[in-house]
Amino acid sequence: MATTGTRSVFLGTFIHCTTLETMEYLHETAVFVDEKGVIVELEQGCDLKTAEDTVFPRLGWEKGDVVVRVGGAGSFFFPGFIDTHIHAPQYPNAGIFGKTTLLDWLEKYTFPMESSLSDLSRARRVYTRCVKRTLSHGTTTASYYATIHVPTTNLLADLCLDLGQRAFIGRCCMDSELSPASYRDESAQQSIAATKATISHIASIDPANALLTPILTPRFAPSCSRELLASLGDLHRETNLPIQTHLSENASELALVRSLFPELPDYTTVYDRFGLLTPKTILAHAIHLSDDEVRLVKARQGKISHCPCSNSSITSGTCKVRNLLDSGLDVGLGTDMSGGYSPSILEAVRQASLVSRHVAMAGDDHAKLSIEEVLYLGTRGGARVVNLSETIGGFGVGMDFDAQLISLGPDQGREEEEEEEEEEEEEEEEAVEEVVVVEVDEGSEEGPVDIFGWESWEEKVAKWVYNGDDRNTRAVWVKGRLVHEVTR
Amino acid sequence: MATTGTRSVFLGTFIHCTTLETMEYLHETAVFVDEKGVIVELEQGCDLKTAEDTVFPRLGWEKGDVVVRVGGAGSFFFPGFIDTHIHAPQYPNAGIFGKTTLLDWLEKYTFPMESSLSDLSRARRVYTRCVKRTLSHGTTTASYYATIHVPTTNLLADLCLDLGQRAFIGRCCMDSELSPASYRDESAQQSIAATKATISHIASIDPANALLTPILTPRFAPSCSRELLASLGDLHRETNLPIQTHLSENASELALVRSLFPELPDYTTVYDRFGLLTPKTILAHAIHLSDDEVRLVKARQGKISHCPCSNSSITSGTCKVRNLLDSGLDVGLGTDMSGGYSPSILEAVRQASLVSRHVAMAGDDHAKLSIEEVLYLGTRGGARVVNLSETIGGFGVGMDFDAQLISLGPDQGREEEEEEEEEEEEEEEEAVEEVVVVEVDEGSEEGPVDIFGWESWEEKVAKWVYNGDDRNTRAVWVKGRLVHEVTR
Repeated sequence: MATTGTRSVFLGTFIHCTTLETMEYLHETAVFVDEKGVIVELEQGCDLKTAEDTVFPRLGWEKGDVVVRVGGAGSFFFPGFIDTHIHAPQYPNAGIFGKTTLLDWLEKYTFPMESSLSDLSRARRVYTRCVKRTLSHGTTTASYYATIHVPTTNLLADLCLDLGQRAFIGRCCMDSELSPASYRDESAQQSIAATKATISHIASIDPANALLTPILTPRFAPSCSRELLASLGDLHRETNLPIQTHLSENASELALVRSLFPELPDYTTVYDRFGLLTPKTILAHAIHLSDDEVRLVKARQGKISHCPCSNSSITSGTCKVRNLLDSGLDVGLGTDMSGGYSPSILEAVRQASLVSRHVAMAGDDHAKLSIEEVLYLGTRGGARVVNLSETIGGFGVGMDFDAQLISLGPDQGREEEEEEEEEEEEEEEEAVEEVVVVEVDEGSEEGPVDIFGWESWEEKVAKWVYNGDDRNTRAVWVKGRLVHEVTR
Repeated sequence: MATTGTRSVFLGTFIHCTTLETMEYLHETAVFVDEKGVIVELEQGCDLKTAEDTVFPRLGWEKGDVVVRVGGAGSFFFPGFIDTHIHAPQYPNAGIFGKTTLLDWLEKYTFPMESSLSDLSRARRVYTRCVKRTLSHGTTTASYYATIHVPTTNLLADLCLDLGQRAFIGRCCMDSELSPASYRDESAQQSIAATKATISHIASIDPANALLTPILTPRFAPSCSRELLASLGDLHRETNLPIQTHLSENASELALVRSLFPELPDYTTVYDRFGLLTPKTILAHAIHLSDDEVRLVKARQGKISHCPCSNSSITSGTCKVRNLLDSGLDVGLGTDMSGGYSPSILEAVRQASLVSRHVAMAGDDHAKLSIEEVLYLGTRGGARVVNLSETIGGFGVGMDFDAQLISLGPDQGREEEEEEEEEEEEEEEEAVEEVVVVEVDEGSEEGPVDIFGWESWEEKVAKWVYNGDDRNTRAVWVKGRLVHEVTR
């Protein structure tokens, strides 16, 4: 089911990024979502009565048919996060990487885990948890790498459709000897045939690509024969399907690519030469690009998935995001789990901020990314990277309602009440301790952020970015469908 | 109340750091804690029956008098965290720092917030939340900076005693014109008198220093007149009280110190010259030390509080922790909230790992810290920094029971059951979705980490370090007293 079949109106504060530098705060706003999950009206200064009396008639809606969802005081609706690079089969390894770097990390942790996901029962368990976990973190769209296995890759597609997550599903293409014999495609032809099998499966379960899109996934240049790269380039030209791969992550990888493709000037050109660098290509990492490579990506309108958690944890390098943005490239965020340790794009948002500060500390003060900028990367930026900027990443008429309801804990009203109580009870000293207990129990139930009531909205958002987590993500919708809710 | 008055036995898995590089995993272990909160016996291979039949008689304990706490399957006891550097009054600003660096951050965010904490009602609210919040993150010992205000600094001491957190309480000493006229000590004499007032208060509420110790707190060299620095050096010699301050955090600060103390060779020597660099001195940050300064700190046996969250967020620099450790310095972790955005030492543990990787990426591969090493810094290392290494930071006979019970979610047994259920229900396809729902609800109740059942204990700890949070910290004890518990 890709549509809710019901009409909804969402009331409260809506916050989204309008440009890289600016966020818009829409208070007392009503967003009207039709039965296909599309926003058909967005009204500021609109309460439920106005919505019902004025907007419903205009839309031809009847009261009884419309689901009403009110964001409470202190909470706000925010666009769903877009994870432009995530490996679903690596979820059980999240946080497990020791002191490895890319190539030994692949060998020690990643290939064995991915290989084991040929097992349907194991894959069901891992993929179900992965999709539900990322939904709970507010990821409404994910660009997944699966494994080489067709049945379990198809299962991942099934699960995303069932659980309601918008997803790009990539069967990993990898036929070179970099991977162990037990975990690689037998040949370029077999790799293409298997890829087509997943494409067909997705066409059969979601023919309109309402939620699911197959994505061509040459794992990375060293994993693929020239024949496979060329065939995938052909397949892209035939199908116009999107492409995802890795680019310029790690020094040893760069040396490997140079040795494998000695006739080509650089890593980026490898993909370009085989017809794999296009406006529909998502390039993960792009840490060590030369100026020529940046220009080539720009010329081809390729997209960048910045994966700060991964780049720090497996010490790949610090991506110069500001340079990429200044060069006019589209940049989104990826968890790159489990190179990245976390399934959460909010954590990627936070680490994008911190990594940009590491770039600044290395001498480029201009590199620092603001709260607005890192949230843009996680929403609008990601939407551009997956070529859905008209549809997701913000709130606007004609866009799909992919959103999360964020609550930061006790609202101002309750805070003020408590304060009054406290002031009263400071008179009678013995009672003070009781009040204190109530306060904290509420806090810990509500989540990891403490709001004192005097914060501006900008400060509330900063507190969410730096200390928030999935406890603050109270509900999540994709195309208007409720796909996650914290019930307690 | 500094003691529980009751005897306890804790049963289950105990994990702690034995050296910088090694952790010990003690399974099926019983830890016996007397009515003063001291570990009197630690027995491996000991269940409740053995404890009662064999150990109780040896200790002269009676069954009915002993509280029994069993850590469930998949959970483990871990030493409480030690936060060697935290500013309690800055808690409401956690996550709010914009693009500032140290000196403008002080002016824009910090001094105004601290100044407002002269208000008793506001201070009660902020400090209560801060202490309860840090306890919920497993911080059993904290070295606090308060503000210049005596009544609210004393209130912080009261609250730590009431709520059961072991704490060093520092009234901020700052009489220079760096701070606004409305928020600084009037003179060196007044600063010393105010400091003595807090020392007296703590002596009156916790005369044995069972939980609380006053700590002399020259904010940092630029905040203090020479007279104040000299008087604090004298006060240290008289009282032998510990000292805490900031050292070598930021380039502008370094330039300021050079301009203020042009006759002295470096920043470290400023403290040394005034008798403030001693074995009882906690130096926060120590990012940009010269080799001479490292040698001087080592010669004086000064201690280092590494604050990775803060150093990255306000772009102070990347501390070369490996160098400090190799030079034989004692290093612990500090949140440095709100220069650091998080009240959690687990977050500091995680960021210490990531920052060490940034140092590695800048060319020193040896700099990378392992899971064992960053957890050591947060426990045993911190204990050495606060000169309590015989008492806290690990499990051993004669040490106090300062501990946290960590649970990572559904235990292996439940996992296996679920797996069996799933396998059964894969036969009947329609039932599958129900099982899945139950699984995730449990997951989100249990916390942010998914354990699949096949992980080694080392891998479980890694998952906790990288994705865990206060939801995993199910209960916390200080000196055997239960000071925090997640009840749901």
